[in-house]
Amino acid sequence: MTANNQTLLQQLTQTWHNTIPVSQFMQIKPLELTRGTFSVTAPIEPNINCHNTMFAGSLSTLATLTGWGAIWLQQKLNNVNGDIVLADGHIRYLAPVTSQPIAQVACHNFEFSRLVAGKKQRFELKVNIICNQQVCAEFSGQYVSLPVGN
Amino acid sequence: MTANNQTLLQQLTQTWHNTIPVSQFMQIKPLELTRGTFSVTAPIEPNINCHNTMFAGSLSTLATLTGWGAIWLQQKLNNVNGDIVLADGHIRYLAPVTSQPIAQVACHNFEFSRLVAGKKQRFELKVNIICNQQVCAEFSGQYVSLPVGN
Repeated sequence: MTANNQTLLQQLTQTWHNTIPVSQFMQIKPLELTRGTFSVTAPIEPNINCHNTMFAGSLSTLATLTGWGAIWLQQKLNNVNGDIVLADGHIRYLAPVTSQPIAQVACHNFEFSRLVAGKKQRFELKVNIICNQQVCAEFSGQYVSLPVGN
Repeated sequence: MTANNQTLLQQLTQTWHNTIPVSQFMQIKPLELTRGTFSVTAPIEPNINCHNTMFAGSLSTLATLTGWGAIWLQQKLNNVNGDIVLADGHIRYLAPVTSQPIAQVACHNFEFSRLVAGKKQRFELKVNIICNQQVCAEFSGQYVSLPVGN
């Protein structure tokens, strides 16, 4: 990971923790941004449920922010501004998450032409939540980035 | 609302806050259980996002727990036990939530025959999140209740 990417991940962590108190409580933290993948994690402890596994709501939030973060990072890397919101989220829970998971999303080939032209840009992202080398949840998110100031 | 229902809502609040730390941080609280509807709320402040509206992840968690709570309450009222988990959640965000929302789910005609027979029982629930007399998010959840001890 480049020094520039590390700086961006620190900025993203601050953005999340300073503006979304739940993300700070959950201790959500970006892990890595490589050319093809962005990954995020959160410890089990603050996100536990009554079955002593990771709470479904926390997994959904982790996936939501992973997709949001991928767009935020690509906007920074492409020097484009936009207010990113989630329009639609669908998560399938496949197996209990019994230890600290990693949420991963592919983040290449993002298209920003509409945003650059002052229009809203849609993104459809798939986030996998992995624990013990197994995909334990699959999330599909439809995000929209809105031109800033519109 | 009957005294028995009020006692159940207090038990549900304790169950959530004692076993799911995120629900306590979010200040999620059952509001009312009538014959046909169960409603839950959470204040904006701990659930704010960078747009100064309610965070998408918090809305998803609020809806997830509202559906979970409806099944938990009906199990209590029908004297049936089961470990409730969410298998699939789909949320559509229709409008920003700018003040304290109410999540509502219909909770009548729950069927527990499979659970009573020692098998898993599926439930498909629709939760609406309402703010300023407007449905701001629609959630569909597929829950499963598993026989206890199996």
